[in-house]
Amino acid sequence: MITNNTEIKQEIFIKMVMDAWNSKVKTLDNLLSELDDQQLIKEVSPGRNQGIYILGHLTVVNNTMLPLLNIKERMVPDVFNIFLQTANKNIVDLPHINDVRQEWINVKTALAIQFLKMKPNDWFQKHTSVSDEDFAKEPHRNKLNVVISRTNHLDYHIGQLVFLKKK
Amino acid sequence: MITNNTEIKQEIFIKMVMDAWNSKVKTLDNLLSELDDQQLIKEVSPGRNQGIYILGHLTVVNNTMLPLLNIKERMVPDVFNIFLQTANKNIVDLPHINDVRQEWINVKTALAIQFLKMKPNDWFQKHTSVSDEDFAKEPHRNKLNVVISRTNHLDYHIGQLVFLKKK
Repeated sequence: MITNNTEIKQEIFIKMVMDAWNSKVKTLDNLLSELDDQQLIKEVSPGRNQGIYILGHLTVVNNTMLPLLNIKERMVPDVFNIFLQTANKNIVDLPHINDVRQEWINVKTALAIQFLKMKPNDWFQKHTSVSDEDFAKEPHRNKLNVVISRTNHLDYHIGQLVFLKKK
Repeated sequence: MITNNTEIKQEIFIKMVMDAWNSKVKTLDNLLSELDDQQLIKEVSPGRNQGIYILGHLTVVNNTMLPLLNIKERMVPDVFNIFLQTANKNIVDLPHINDVRQEWINVKTALAIQFLKMKPNDWFQKHTSVSDEDFAKEPHRNKLNVVISRTNHLDYHIGQLVFLKKK
Protein backbone atom coordinates (compact mmCIF):
# COMPACT_ATOMS: atom_id res chain seq x y z
CA MET A 1 0.00 0.00 0.00
CA ILE A 2 2.71 2.46 0.99
CA THR A 3 4.93 1.12 -1.76
CA ASN A 4 2.12 1.74 -4.23
CA ASN A 5 1.87 5.26 -2.94
CA THR A 6 5.60 5.80 -3.61
CA GLU A 7 5.22 4.46 -7.10
CA ILE A 8 2.12 6.52 -7.80
CA LYS A 9 3.80 9.71 -6.59
CA GLN A 10 6.83 8.94 -8.72
CA GLU A 11 4.70 8.33 -11.77
CA ILE A 12 2.84 11.58 -11.20
CA PHE A 13 6.14 13.53 -11.03
CA ILE A 14 7.36 11.90 -14.19
CA LYS A 15 4.10 12.63 -15.98
CA MET A 16 4.29 16.30 -14.94
CA VAL A 17 7.78 16.63 -16.42
CA MET A 18 7.08 14.58 -19.56
CA ASP A 19 3.84 16.47 -20.27
CA ALA A 20 5.70 19.78 -20.11
CA TRP A 21 8.46 18.50 -22.44
CA ASN A 22 5.99 17.01 -24.93
CA SER A 23 3.87 20.14 -24.92
CA LYS A 24 6.86 22.35 -25.77
CA VAL A 25 8.07 19.95 -28.49
CA LYS A 26 4.59 20.15 -30.00
CA THR A 27 4.63 23.96 -29.81
CA LEU A 28 7.97 24.02 -31.63
CA ASP A 29 6.75 21.57 -34.26
CA ASN A 30 3.64 23.64 -34.91
CA LEU A 31 5.78 26.73 -35.26
CA LEU A 32 8.19 24.98 -37.65
CA SER A 33 5.33 23.84 -39.87
CA GLU A 34 4.15 27.43 -40.01
CA LEU A 35 7.54 28.92 -40.90
CA ASP A 36 8.86 28.49 -44.45
CA ASP A 37 12.59 28.38 -45.17
CA GLN A 38 12.67 32.07 -46.05
CA GLN A 39 11.32 32.93 -42.62
CA LEU A 40 13.51 30.46 -40.80
CA ILE A 41 16.65 31.92 -42.34
CA LYS A 42 15.90 35.38 -40.89
CA GLU A 43 17.29 36.85 -37.67
CA VAL A 44 14.78 36.70 -34.80
CA SER A 45 15.66 40.29 -33.93
CA PRO A 46 18.10 42.61 -35.76
CA GLY A 47 21.69 41.45 -35.23
CA ARG A 48 20.58 38.34 -33.28
CA ASN A 49 20.63 34.66 -34.25
CA GLN A 50 18.90 33.34 -37.36
CA GLY A 51 15.99 30.96 -36.89
CA ILE A 52 17.95 28.13 -38.49
CA TYR A 53 20.76 28.68 -35.99
CA ILE A 54 18.37 28.45 -33.05
CA LEU A 55 16.80 25.27 -34.45
CA GLY A 56 20.25 23.74 -34.93
CA HIS A 57 21.17 24.79 -31.39
CA LEU A 58 18.04 23.16 -29.94
CA THR A 59 18.81 20.02 -31.95
CA VAL A 60 22.39 19.59 -30.76
CA VAL A 61 21.68 20.63 -27.14
CA ASN A 62 18.79 18.22 -26.83
CA ASN A 63 20.81 15.52 -28.51
CA THR A 64 23.21 15.74 -25.56
CA MET A 65 20.37 14.48 -23.35
CA LEU A 66 20.95 11.00 -24.75
CA PRO A 67 24.47 10.49 -23.31
CA LEU A 68 23.48 12.43 -20.15
CA LEU A 69 20.71 9.91 -19.59
CA ASN A 70 23.21 7.18 -20.43
CA ILE A 71 20.89 5.67 -22.98
CA LYS A 72 22.57 6.32 -26.29
CA GLU A 73 25.45 8.16 -27.84
CA ARG A 74 25.05 11.44 -29.65
CA MET A 75 23.70 11.09 -33.14
CA VAL A 76 23.85 14.46 -34.92
CA PRO A 77 26.70 15.01 -37.40
CA ASP A 78 29.83 16.74 -36.03
CA VAL A 79 29.14 19.76 -38.19
CA PHE A 80 26.23 20.53 -35.82
CA ASN A 81 28.74 21.45 -33.12
CA ILE A 82 28.83 24.95 -34.60
CA PHE A 83 25.38 25.42 -33.07
CA LEU A 84 26.90 25.21 -29.61
CA GLN A 85 28.55 28.59 -30.05
CA THR A 86 26.67 31.46 -28.44
CA ALA A 87 25.92 33.37 -31.62
CA ASN A 88 25.98 32.71 -35.32
CA LYS A 89 26.97 36.07 -36.72
CA ASN A 90 30.36 34.93 -37.92
CA ILE A 91 29.39 31.52 -39.21
CA VAL A 92 29.35 31.34 -42.97
CA ASP A 93 28.84 27.64 -43.56
CA LEU A 94 25.72 26.53 -41.74
CA PRO A 95 24.33 23.09 -42.58
CA HIS A 96 21.49 23.16 -45.13
CA ILE A 97 18.13 24.15 -43.70
CA ASN A 98 16.57 20.83 -44.76
CA ASP A 99 19.27 18.95 -42.83
CA VAL A 100 18.65 21.04 -39.74
CA ARG A 101 14.91 20.44 -39.91
CA GLN A 102 15.53 16.71 -40.40
CA GLU A 103 18.05 16.40 -37.55
CA TRP A 104 15.58 18.03 -35.17
CA ILE A 105 13.03 15.38 -36.14
CA ASN A 106 15.64 12.63 -35.64
CA VAL A 107 16.62 13.91 -32.20
CA LYS A 108 13.13 14.47 -30.84
CA THR A 109 12.09 11.03 -32.12
CA ALA A 110 15.12 9.30 -30.57
CA LEU A 111 14.36 11.05 -27.27
CA ALA A 112 10.69 10.04 -27.38
CA ILE A 113 11.65 6.40 -27.97
CA GLN A 114 14.25 6.38 -25.20
CA PHE A 115 11.99 8.19 -22.72
CA LEU A 116 9.37 5.48 -23.16
CA LYS A 117 11.94 2.82 -22.29
CA MET A 118 12.87 4.43 -18.97
CA LYS A 119 11.50 2.79 -15.83
CA PRO A 120 10.14 5.18 -13.17
CA ASN A 121 13.10 4.55 -10.86
CA ASP A 122 15.60 5.21 -13.65
CA TRP A 123 14.56 8.85 -13.74
CA PHE A 124 15.72 9.36 -10.16
CA GLN A 125 19.21 8.01 -10.81
CA LYS A 126 22.09 10.41 -11.32
CA HIS A 127 22.77 11.75 -14.78
CA THR A 128 26.16 10.93 -16.25
CA SER A 129 27.85 14.27 -15.57
CA VAL A 130 27.41 14.07 -11.78
CA SER A 131 29.88 12.10 -9.66
CA ASP A 132 28.63 9.43 -7.22
CA GLU A 133 29.94 11.56 -4.38
CA ASP A 134 28.11 14.71 -5.44
CA PHE A 135 24.94 12.77 -6.17
CA ALA A 136 24.91 11.34 -2.65
CA LYS A 137 24.74 14.92 -1.34
CA GLU A 138 22.57 16.32 -4.14
CA PRO A 139 20.04 13.66 -5.18
CA HIS A 140 18.03 16.24 -7.12
CA ARG A 141 20.72 16.12 -9.82
CA ASN A 142 18.96 13.21 -11.44
CA LYS A 143 17.92 12.35 -14.98
CA LEU A 144 14.45 13.81 -14.63
CA ASN A 145 15.99 17.13 -13.65
CA VAL A 146 17.82 17.23 -16.98
CA VAL A 147 14.46 17.14 -18.74
CA ILE A 148 13.08 19.95 -16.53
CA SER A 149 15.98 22.19 -17.42
CA ARG A 150 15.91 21.31 -21.13
CA THR A 151 12.19 22.06 -21.26
CA ASN A 152 12.85 25.56 -19.93
CA HIS A 153 15.64 25.96 -22.46
CA LEU A 154 13.31 24.89 -25.26
CA ASP A 155 10.67 27.43 -24.23
CA TYR A 156 13.32 30.18 -23.96
CA HIS A 157 14.16 29.73 -27.63
CA ILE A 158 10.54 29.21 -28.75
CA GLY A 159 9.94 32.70 -27.30
CA GLN A 160 12.50 33.95 -29.82
CA LEU A 161 11.44 31.87 -32.84
CA VAL A 162 7.85 33.21 -32.65
CA PHE A 163 9.21 36.54 -33.91
CA LEU A 164 9.72 34.91 -37.31
CA LYS A 165 5.97 34.54 -37.73
CA LYS A 166 4.11 37.06 -39.85
CA LYS A 167 2.70 39.93 -37.77
CA MET B 1 11.44 3.23 5.93
CA ILE B 2 9.22 3.10 2.86
CA THR B 3 7.23 6.11 4.08
CA ASN B 4 10.51 7.98 4.49
CA ASN B 5 11.38 7.04 0.97
CA THR B 6 8.12 8.58 -0.27
CA GLU B 7 8.79 11.75 1.68
CA ILE B 8 12.38 11.96 0.46
CA LYS B 9 11.30 11.51 -3.15
CA GLN B 10 8.66 14.19 -2.70
CA GLU B 11 11.13 16.62 -1.21
CA ILE B 12 13.66 15.97 -3.93
CA PHE B 13 11.05 16.58 -6.56
CA ILE B 14 9.86 19.81 -4.92
CA LYS B 15 13.47 20.98 -4.73
CA MET B 16 13.94 20.30 -8.46
CA VAL B 17 10.93 22.44 -9.31
CA MET B 18 11.74 25.22 -6.82
CA ASP B 19 15.40 25.38 -7.92
CA ALA B 20 14.31 25.84 -11.52
CA TRP B 21 11.85 28.61 -10.57
CA ASN B 22 14.38 30.41 -8.35
CA SER B 23 17.08 30.16 -10.97
CA LYS B 24 14.89 31.78 -13.62
CA VAL B 25 13.74 34.53 -11.22
CA LYS B 26 17.41 35.25 -10.56
CA THR B 27 18.17 35.33 -14.29
CA LEU B 28 15.35 37.84 -14.81
CA ASP B 29 16.51 39.97 -11.88
CA ASN B 30 20.07 40.06 -13.19
CA LEU B 31 18.76 41.08 -16.59
CA LEU B 32 16.55 43.81 -15.10
CA SER B 33 19.47 45.26 -13.17
CA GLU B 34 21.43 45.40 -16.42
CA LEU B 35 18.68 47.11 -18.44
CA ASP B 36 18.04 50.81 -17.87
CA ASP B 37 14.59 52.32 -18.42
CA GLN B 38 15.49 53.46 -21.93
CA GLN B 39 16.31 49.89 -22.89
CA LEU B 40 13.29 48.41 -21.13
CA ILE B 41 10.92 50.71 -23.01
CA LYS B 42 12.11 49.38 -26.38
CA GLU B 43 10.46 46.65 -28.46
CA VAL B 44 12.25 43.30 -28.14
CA SER B 45 12.02 42.88 -31.92
CA PRO B 46 10.56 45.35 -34.45
CA GLY B 47 6.77 45.56 -34.09
CA ARG B 48 6.77 43.20 -31.07
CA ASN B 49 6.12 43.91 -27.39
CA GLN B 50 8.09 46.46 -25.40
CA GLY B 51 10.26 45.18 -22.56
CA ILE B 52 8.09 46.99 -20.01
CA TYR B 53 5.02 45.21 -21.39
CA ILE B 54 6.68 41.80 -21.02
CA LEU B 55 7.76 42.60 -17.46
CA GLY B 56 4.21 43.71 -16.60
CA HIS B 57 2.87 40.55 -18.21
CA LEU B 58 5.21 38.34 -16.17
CA THR B 59 4.18 40.24 -13.03
CA VAL B 60 0.45 39.84 -13.47
CA VAL B 61 0.62 36.24 -14.75
CA ASN B 62 2.80 35.13 -11.86
CA ASN B 63 0.60 37.03 -9.44
CA THR B 64 -2.22 34.69 -10.47
CA MET B 65 -0.24 31.83 -8.94
CA LEU B 66 -1.26 33.08 -5.51
CA PRO B 67 -5.02 32.45 -5.88
CA LEU B 68 -4.29 29.28 -7.92
CA LEU B 69 -2.32 27.94 -4.98
CA ASN B 70 -5.14 29.12 -2.72
CA ILE B 71 -2.71 30.98 -0.51
CA LYS B 72 -3.53 34.62 -1.09
CA GLU B 73 -5.60 36.86 -3.30
CA ARG B 74 -4.12 38.77 -6.20
CA MET B 75 -2.22 41.86 -5.18
CA VAL B 76 -1.26 43.84 -8.28
CA PRO B 77 -3.36 46.93 -9.11
CA ASP B 78 -6.25 46.40 -11.57
CA VAL B 79 -4.49 48.57 -14.13
CA PHE B 80 -2.02 45.69 -14.57
CA ASN B 81 -4.75 43.65 -16.26
CA ILE B 82 -3.78 45.35 -19.52
CA PHE B 83 -0.69 43.15 -19.45
CA LEU B 84 -2.87 40.09 -19.96
CA GLN B 85 -3.62 41.12 -23.53
CA THR B 86 -1.52 39.34 -26.11
CA ALA B 87 0.26 42.43 -27.47
CA ASN B 88 0.77 45.98 -26.41
CA LYS B 89 0.84 47.80 -29.71
CA ASN B 90 -2.44 49.61 -29.15
CA ILE B 91 -1.97 50.42 -25.48
CA VAL B 92 -1.25 54.07 -24.89
CA ASP B 93 -1.44 54.27 -21.11
CA LEU B 94 0.94 51.74 -19.63
CA PRO B 95 1.71 52.01 -15.90
CA HIS B 96 4.92 53.88 -15.12
CA ILE B 97 8.07 51.82 -15.58
CA ASN B 98 9.04 52.28 -11.91
CA ASP B 99 5.68 50.86 -10.84
CA VAL B 100 6.11 47.87 -13.11
CA ARG B 101 9.59 47.17 -11.77
CA GLN B 102 8.28 47.54 -8.19
CA GLU B 103 5.25 45.28 -8.72
CA TRP B 104 7.49 42.54 -10.09
CA ILE B 105 9.53 42.74 -6.88
CA ASN B 106 6.33 42.64 -4.79
CA VAL B 107 4.99 39.59 -6.62
CA LYS B 108 8.19 37.54 -6.62
CA THR B 109 8.68 38.32 -2.92
CA ALA B 110 5.10 37.37 -2.03
CA LEU B 111 5.55 34.11 -3.94
CA ALA B 112 8.86 33.33 -2.22
CA ILE B 113 7.27 33.85 1.20
CA GLN B 114 4.23 31.73 0.38
CA PHE B 115 6.29 28.96 -1.21
CA LEU B 116 8.29 28.62 2.01
CA LYS B 117 5.08 28.16 3.99
CA MET B 118 3.90 25.23 1.86
CA LYS B 119 4.24 21.77 3.37
CA PRO B 120 5.52 19.05 0.98
CA ASN B 121 2.09 17.42 0.77
CA ASP B 122 0.40 20.72 -0.02
CA TRP B 123 2.18 20.85 -3.35
CA PHE B 124 0.47 17.67 -4.47
CA GLN B 125 -3.02 18.95 -3.79
CA LYS B 126 -5.14 20.23 -6.65
CA HIS B 127 -4.81 23.84 -7.71
CA THR B 128 -7.95 25.94 -7.44
CA SER B 129 -8.96 25.86 -11.10
CA VAL B 130 -9.32 22.06 -11.25
CA SER B 131 -12.53 20.38 -10.07
CA ASP B 132 -12.40 17.56 -7.49
CA GLU B 133 -13.73 15.20 -10.14
CA ASP B 134 -11.07 16.07 -12.72
CA PHE B 135 -8.34 15.97 -10.11
CA ALA B 136 -9.31 12.44 -9.10
CA LYS B 137 -8.61 11.35 -12.68
CA GLU B 138 -5.67 13.71 -13.30
CA PRO B 139 -3.63 14.00 -10.09
CA HIS B 140 -0.76 15.63 -11.96
CA ARG B 141 -2.83 18.82 -12.11
CA ASN B 142 -1.50 19.84 -8.74
CA LYS B 143 -0.02 23.02 -7.31
CA LEU B 144 3.54 22.05 -8.08
CA ASN B 145 2.62 21.63 -11.73
CA VAL B 146 1.55 25.27 -11.83
CA VAL B 147 5.10 26.25 -10.87
CA ILE B 148 6.58 24.00 -13.57
CA SER B 149 4.48 25.63 -16.23
CA ARG B 150 5.10 29.17 -14.94
CA THR B 151 8.84 28.54 -14.91
CA ASN B 152 8.70 27.63 -18.59
CA HIS B 153 6.63 30.72 -19.26
CA LEU B 154 9.18 32.87 -17.43
CA ASP B 155 12.04 31.46 -19.50
CA TYR B 156 10.07 31.96 -22.74
CA HIS B 157 9.89 35.69 -22.04
CA ILE B 158 13.46 35.96 -20.69
CA GLY B 159 14.51 34.65 -24.12
CA GLN B 160 12.84 37.76 -25.58
CA LEU B 161 14.00 40.31 -23.00
CA VAL B 162 17.68 39.44 -23.61
CA PHE B 163 17.36 41.18 -26.97
CA LEU B 164 17.19 44.50 -25.11
CA LYS B 165 20.78 44.07 -23.95
CA LYS B 166 23.51 45.89 -25.81
CA LYS B 167 25.08 43.79 -28.55
